[in-house]
This record gives sequence, C-alpha cells and structure tokens, in this order.
Amino acid sequence: MTYNKETNASILIIGNEVLSGRTKDINTSTLALWLNSLGIIVKEVRVVPDIESTIIDTVNQLRKKFTYVFTTGGIGPTHDDITAMSISKAFGIEYGFHKEAFSILKKYYKPGEFNEGRQKMSKMPVTAKLILNPTSGAPGFNVENVFCLPGVPSILQSMLGGLKNSLVGGKPILSETINLRTVESEIAKSLTYVQNQNKDVEIGSYPFFRAGKLGVSIVIRSTDKVKIDKCNSEIITFVKEKNIEVVESD
Amino acid sequence: MTYNKETNASILIIGNEVLSGRTKDINTSTLALWLNSLGIIVKEVRVVPDIESTIIDTVNQLRKKFTYVFTTGGIGPTHDDITAMSISKAFGIEYGFHKEAFSILKKYYKPGEFNEGRQKMSKMPVTAKLILNPTSGAPGFNVENVFCLPGVPSILQSMLGGLKNSLVGGKPILSETINLRTVESEIAKSLTYVQNQNKDVEIGSYPFFRAGKLGVSIVIRSTDKVKIDKCNSEIITFVKEKNIEVVESD
Repeated sequence: MTYNKETNASILIIGNEVLSGRTKDINTSTLALWLNSLGIIVKEVRVVPDIESTIIDTVNQLRKKFTYVFTTGGIGPTHDDITAMSISKAFGIEYGFHKEAFSILKKYYKPGEFNEGRQKMSKMPVTAKLILNPTSGAPGFNVENVFCLPGVPSILQSMLGGLKNSLVGGKPILSETINLRTVESEIAKSLTYVQNQNKDVEIGSYPFFRAGKLGVSIVIRSTDKVKIDKCNSEIITFVKEKNIEVVESD
Repeated sequence: MTYNKETNASILIIGNEVLSGRTKDINTSTLALWLNSLGIIVKEVRVVPDIESTIIDTVNQLRKKFTYVFTTGGIGPTHDDITAMSISKAFGIEYGFHKEAFSILKKYYKPGEFNEGRQKMSKMPVTAKLILNPTSGAPGFNVENVFCLPGVPSILQSMLGGLKNSLVGGKPILSETINLRTVESEIAKSLTYVQNQNKDVEIGSYPFFRAGKLGVSIVIRSTDKVKIDKCNSEIITFVKEKNIEVVESD
C-alpha cells in the first residue's frame, strides 16, 4: 500500500477539552474529507494541551515533516487561547496586533464593543496572511505552511472556502465502499490476496455492528478510478463465490 | 496551570479510516473520561496510518514519554490489522500464536469455525498479558506500559472494566462546568484574573452555538474539590457583577 506522496498534511488539535474527553473532535473528519477532495492526504493527527512549549515543539516537528499543517483551536480571546503566541514563537516572528486583522475586527463590532478581549483576537504573528472568517469576524492566519483555524466546527467549516486557493494539492483521492453482511474473518484471506495484487491501492476493512446486525465495510482508496474499479470487481467476484450479501450502507 | 504529573497517558489511534475522515474517533473521549476517573490524565493523542514503521516509531516515542500508552485499532483478522506485529517489533518480542489467546478463541468459536482469519487474532507478542474481551472473544493485550485495544467503540468500552486493576492511577480528576449566556470576549479579562489567582487549577473556556444561541462553557478541572469550589465561587462573583445569565447546560 503506498500513498500519494506529493502533497500531505497533518492536523494539530490544540485543546484540553479534547484531551479531557469533554469534547469529541469532529474537525479532523471535516478537514480530512476536504483535503482529500483537493488531493492532499492527512498522514498524522495530534492532539495536544494548551501548553505553549508543547505547541511550539509539535508545530516545529510537524511543519518540517509534512507539506501542510492545520491547527485547530486556541485562537479566541480567553487566557487559554495561546495558539497565536505559540506560532509566533515557533517561527520567531513578532507577536502583536496584525493591522489588517485589527481593522477587520474593528469594523465587525459596533462602536464601543471592540473591547480588550476582542482586540486580542487580532494579535498574532504580525506578518501572517489572514484566513477570512465569514461567520464570526475573527480571522485565522497562515505562516509558511502552517494554517491556524478556530476550534468551533461550524466556524472552521465556513473558513475552508477562502483557504482553497492557498493550497497546492494533487489528484483528488477517490474512494469506493462495499458493505457486506459478513464478518472480517470470513473474507480476510481473499481480501489479503486482492490487496497483494493491487499494492498501490489502499484497501481498508472495518467491521460494523448496527441495528443488531454485524457487517464489514470495505473501503478502497486511490487517486485512480480505474484501479479502484479493478479492486472493486475482484472483491465482488470473491463475495459472490462466498455467497455473501452486499448491503446498501453501513 | 499545572497537571497532575504523577500518572499520565497518551492515546494512539491506529487507522486510515480516521485519517481519511470516514470515521470520527470517539474512543479518545471514552478512554479520556475513564482514565480521568482513575486519576490518569491524557496528555497527547496521535492518529497514525496503518504503516508498520510509523506505528513502531510512534509507540517507541510515546511509551518512553508517558506513564501509559493506549492504542486502539488494528487488532482484527484482516491484512490492514498490523498493530500486534508492530508492537512485537517495537518491543523486540517474538510475534506468534499466544497460547492463552489461542485457547480462548478456540473455545469461543463453534467447532470448524476457528478459521485462519480468526486464528490470526491470537497472534501477538507471545509474552503479552491479555486484556479480556467480554463482547466478541478476541482479546487485546498489554506489554509493559502499552495497552492495545480494538477500534470498534462498543467492544473497546466493554474491555475497560477488566483493565482497571492493571493501572496505577492518582487522585480522580474532578471537573465543574459553568454555562453562561455570554461571549468569550465579555469575560476574558475576569477569567484571566481568576486563572492567575488559581494557577494549579485548569480553567478552560469554550464557546458554544446551539439552538441559535451563543454561550460559553467554563470548565474548571483539578483533583482538589476545594480548589474547584474556590474558582467556581470567584467566577460566579464576576458573572453576577456583569449581570450574565447562568444557563442549565451547553
């Protein structure tokens, strides 16, 4: 199994709320699906606490290892929002009021409402490029290959459209799912054979238990539709031979 | 803000399905809440693909850095289940049929149904301790401070009870949440003041947008109930002064 090595990414979730179990992260899924559609494959995700030295070390590791790094969380106005300061330090860029961000936020709020907390949201690496926020004003920002987005899923999602042109992707990663009324051990050997015959396609096998019934989803992923179709047909062949039922969805 | 440094953990999610965005990970939340109740704080989560060298390197980094490492995923019967082999290599322990696991699985299946795929689920580091699986037979395993669990959330959850006695925790991490009908920037300054007065308590601030209304959840975490209560009362004091409404839940 090989990956499209041309363009990859990692996601860095910054926030104690995910590590404590209080919040279930859904930004990884949103970002990964969107990046896949641009031909960018997510190769690693990390979740770290709101500790400056940890954020700095992790960003510096990831930005050297992957084409792009997307951070989520920690860019709001409160004391636990330390992403902008940490990114400034990771890159050795001055942390301060970003002129354009300050001006955007000043216009966004009514006169007299642009208080200290709101002003803090325009503090970031002063030379960063902004990522505009159509939902709630406060922009994200981009330094080199690192893109910093908010943690609130609906706001993050609304900012992706404006980000697209900043990324150079590859061929979109396509996928095909086959859902079977079987258990993994019944198909393991045949599926291994298909994987070995198609080494540059990623074939995943995922058991599911829903509505009291067992099943397996086989997911075939590649940038090449022809290769996906070849695997699909090889899998369907052994599925028919084994009299396994194909079901609509998992 | 300081952490209970006595006992910590990291979680390693192994699986392309999370990196592709297809599956939203919920095991982190399950494990983190459970570990907190045992006084073990989760300090890092990583999600990595089904690539042997990546799994080996990551496990070897994490097991040196944290008291415990919990892996999820990759212990089933199919070709993409490579956790057991990778952990064997990470520890330099022979990978082969584990006698006890083999015997458990042989008894679990009807005569004639213990096929090659199912037998594979008893292959692991031969000296590993088993983590029993009351749901579907196939055990997880433990080598030193690394605990390998399945990826299917319901099965993982069913195995935690049997694991408790293998872990040495600390004081349970307690938390208190205050939900406010406000925005973060209105309380940022006062909250920073409370955090600075209570440096050994973790205070998090999380905006929420639900049912068309904005709000902020303040989460106070500590092993010490008295310290939580002190913060709680300091926060409620400024909340009253500012005439901010306290709401039932986020």
